[in-house]
Amino acid sequence: MFQSLGARPFAVPAPVFLVGSYTADNCPNIMTAAWGGIVASQPPCMAVSLQRVRASYTAILERQAFTLNIPSADMVAEVDFAGLVSGKKTNKYKALSLTALAAEHVDAPLVAECPVAIELKLMHTLELGSHVQLVGEVMDVKIHKDCLDEQNLPLMGRINPLLFVPLSREYWTVGEMAAKAFSVGRSIVRPLLDEQP
Amino acid sequence: MFQSLGARPFAVPAPVFLVGSYTADNCPNIMTAAWGGIVASQPPCMAVSLQRVRASYTAILERQAFTLNIPSADMVAEVDFAGLVSGKKTNKYKALSLTALAAEHVDAPLVAECPVAIELKLMHTLELGSHVQLVGEVMDVKIHKDCLDEQNLPLMGRINPLLFVPLSREYWTVGEMAAKAFSVGRSIVRPLLDEQP
Repeated sequence: MFQSLGARPFAVPAPVFLVGSYTADNCPNIMTAAWGGIVASQPPCMAVSLQRVRASYTAILERQAFTLNIPSADMVAEVDFAGLVSGKKTNKYKALSLTALAAEHVDAPLVAECPVAIELKLMHTLELGSHVQLVGEVMDVKIHKDCLDEQNLPLMGRINPLLFVPLSREYWTVGEMAAKAFSVGRSIVRPLLDEQP
Repeated sequence: MFQSLGARPFAVPAPVFLVGSYTADNCPNIMTAAWGGIVASQPPCMAVSLQRVRASYTAILERQAFTLNIPSADMVAEVDFAGLVSGKKTNKYKALSLTALAAEHVDAPLVAECPVAIELKLMHTLELGSHVQLVGEVMDVKIHKDCLDEQNLPLMGRINPLLFVPLSREYWTVGEMAAKAFSVGRSIVRPLLDEQP
């Protein structure tokens, strides 16, 4: 039985990103954001939605570049801090003892301590009321070597990312692998194909 | 030490949605999609990116409506099936013994078995190469009563959603709560405030 909660934004899991940019005075800055994700495969595009008042919003428009860094669960206090405090007042990299690495392909800083760091060139902005969606083309994905298997595929358990739960406003961790995609469903496909004349 | 993987779309976790729509002959249809999520708070907006060849793409543009249904981990084979098979050839609701409920506010079907079902009115389309991003305004969020606490807040452990991992192409489950958001970071904020003159 469904309970109606009204017109609210809700998705689980929402990803947790540290969005990296340079401020006007060349200071590396980060902010926490969960309204984002992959939006296209080719060209590879990812998006994050920010409020216009954010220092990061202005900075990203100025340089036409940003990074999406995926923190691990052991960084949860730092992640929450980076969403509570404005980059206009605080050098968050310094306050959190994080290392700003210059991105290779775009004019934005990476977070060296995050297991995943993605470099994006700003491609589109979409005005959506409270937020502006910033769509970037992925120029490079960087993953810590110890979070990759021998085929350079990501090890989810090693990355150990955070999940954000809207409404209840909680961070959660990942559990176990459930199944291989594009595979486990074939157990249902095959009998169906057999049924066809 | 980062390993560069090149220009690829990568985010963990990516959400897993069953996207609901009615085909031209009024048949309820679903497809699995992981390129999506929340894009604005007010008005509440969520988006999903689909390839133009999908039956669901045409159907959503026709009715200007869709649903985003969040399956639980025990539906993983059904979820994978709904991404492997086209609605042009197969009635997926029927094949999977799922129940199509008419949405209350938009012209699209919900999946009764999913713990979360969201009704969306199509607001924007954004052409992004391989995919078109469909941005919808949330008209209602419905959650199974046994997945809500006494304040009608979502119980992540009960919803038990799937997480999709790009590149390694795996479904994962959620683990444990890590911390309360807008709270755990205050342990870092307070000493900083004390430092200020």
